Amino acid sequence: MILEVAILSIKAGESAAFMDSFSKAQAIIASMPGYITHSLQKCLEQEDKFLLLVQWQTLENHTVGFRGPEAYLTWKQLLHHFYDPFPVVEHFTQVL
Amino acid sequence: MILEVAILSIKAGESAAFMDSFSKAQAIIASMPGYITHSLQKCLEQEDKFLLLVQWQTLENHTVGFRGPEAYLTWKQLLHHFYDPFPVVEHFTQVL
Repeated sequence: MILEVAILSIKAGESAAFMDSFSKAQAIIASMPGYITHSLQKCLEQEDKFLLLVQWQTLENHTVGFRGPEAYLTWKQLLHHFYDPFPVVEHFTQVL
Repeated sequence: MILEVAILSIKAGESAAFMDSFSKAQAIIASMPGYITHSLQKCLEQEDKFLLLVQWQTLENHTVGFRGPEAYLTWKQLLHHFYDPFPVVEHFTQVL
């Protein structure tokens, strides 16, 4: 099991619009093969900062399956214009 | 419910020793009032990088309760010498 982790910096004042778009976009990841669960978390200390956590069965479920052309294009159109800077996405595996 | 998030950069080559110490230290957080669950996650893309996720019932369970003198002193002695740089800890609340 793999945890996808992305710290999301949203353009100032656009958090509400981002959450609205994310509420639509989340159906895309939830429908992908290998998807287990996800959550969108809002930071208490910094405005317009979020954390996206997605659990996948394998790394390739995210890096190959999810980023296939159709689903990822819709995901991008819904969400990518909110980011500044564009987020670094990393993957983790639970050790303890 | 609050998610404590810390990205941990461990001194080069000390990840195995850090995991060993963390396996002892985790009993400290697990015994604190308001603790729900935690996981230690190891990064796939970067050596010696970890993510600590801890769920607490309230923010104060972590910032006041956990950082009280006795338990936190033991936690520090077990873990803080592995970090470079010292991690920034932030808190999140699930919105979606």
